Amino acid sequence: MKISVLGTGIVGHTIGSKLIELGHQVCMGSRTANHEKAVTFVKKNGSLASQGTFADSAAFGEVIFNCTKGEFAIAALQMAGAINLRGKTVIDISNPLDFSKGMPPSLFVCNTDSLGEQIQRAFPDAHVVKTLNIVNCEVMVHAGKSGGDPTMFVSGNNADAKKQAVTFLNAFGWNDIIDLGDISTARGTEQMLPVWVRTYLATGNGYFAFKIVR
Amino acid sequence: MKISVLGTGIVGHTIGSKLIELGHQVCMGSRTANHEKAVTFVKKNGSLASQGTFADSAAFGEVIFNCTKGEFAIAALQMAGAINLRGKTVIDISNPLDFSKGMPPSLFVCNTDSLGEQIQRAFPDAHVVKTLNIVNCEVMVHAGKSGGDPTMFVSGNNADAKKQAVTFLNAFGWNDIIDLGDISTARGTEQMLPVWVRTYLATGNGYFAFKIVR
Repeated sequence: MKISVLGTGIVGHTIGSKLIELGHQVCMGSRTANHEKAVTFVKKNGSLASQGTFADSAAFGEVIFNCTKGEFAIAALQMAGAINLRGKTVIDISNPLDFSKGMPPSLFVCNTDSLGEQIQRAFPDAHVVKTLNIVNCEVMVHAGKSGGDPTMFVSGNNADAKKQAVTFLNAFGWNDIIDLGDISTARGTEQMLPVWVRTYLATGNGYFAFKIVR
Repeated sequence: MKISVLGTGIVGHTIGSKLIELGHQVCMGSRTANHEKAVTFVKKNGSLASQGTFADSAAFGEVIFNCTKGEFAIAALQMAGAINLRGKTVIDISNPLDFSKGMPPSLFVCNTDSLGEQIQRAFPDAHVVKTLNIVNCEVMVHAGKSGGDPTMFVSGNNADAKKQAVTFLNAFGWNDIIDLGDISTARGTEQMLPVWVRTYLATGNGYFAFKIVR
């Protein structure tokens, strides 16, 4: 499948590399074409990898992975272009983390709204699915790196888009998936970030995940 | 040990009954002495159980369990009296849930503050430990009712108070406990309530808990 990965940070690289390992074609998008990190991504990943602007990438992809930093997510998706997102599954991994006052971060939106909802409202013709945002990026693509069989949540308004997201989650090693409901349930998973950060700071271990024991 | 349980709701009853089963003396506190539900609690639990006002209960207890509803927690503790909390471990189970707009609830404090911190600031001589607030009350006192060996967090400024809280957690069947740090880390665990509620609504099962797989 042709996949757009928006964002050249460690999340974009890790997700993009894993998707190529799975046999997909990946176009990494950034603010400008030929971004140094995107060029490195292509060199590292061979003929299935390409790069371009956010709009190039989103036009290429049948599915979009939003791997941008939360504070830039909506701006990046605007550069990607609503027309290039229309009718597509947008897997939103971003988190509304505010590091402006240092560690630990707070959330710049929470409680009665979420970044997932903001994105869905900004791009009503896209099918936004919030998932994967509650673990570090290596655990995202190898659930077993947490040391167990953890749970992953999906939130979104479109059932087919969530089904498509789940096929990627399965390929990433996630076997226990809970569909929380519509995109407003992203409030719940985005608000797990504070306890993620505190658990990381308390244990010194970022290779963990949440299991809903039931 | 002499224990104060503040609150006559299902959380107070469940915690109080379990503490009596473990051989402790429990005084249930409420707004007025001889509250109908507190009298029922005493009848049901025999000679180790007693009841009275919040102040009677807090004066009796060597340890305080705050089982009041979040919106009334500080008022209830004020009625209990700062002098009766001084130097004692206050195990705070309350959650800042706001049901004023129906289901699902939002939080009336979160992100850059927490109810645990508000209580600690209001009663600086008490040793507040936030814990148990992330599961239903039957799972609180029987961790195994979740169907596994889940994780419980503790947050608090006083190491001895956290150690004392952990002895109760162990007696309630919690074997995997993570000390997140000072009371500000209660922001993390209180913000797990939204995903708790959404998981409950999505699965129809309230007998679950969170395991940090690592």
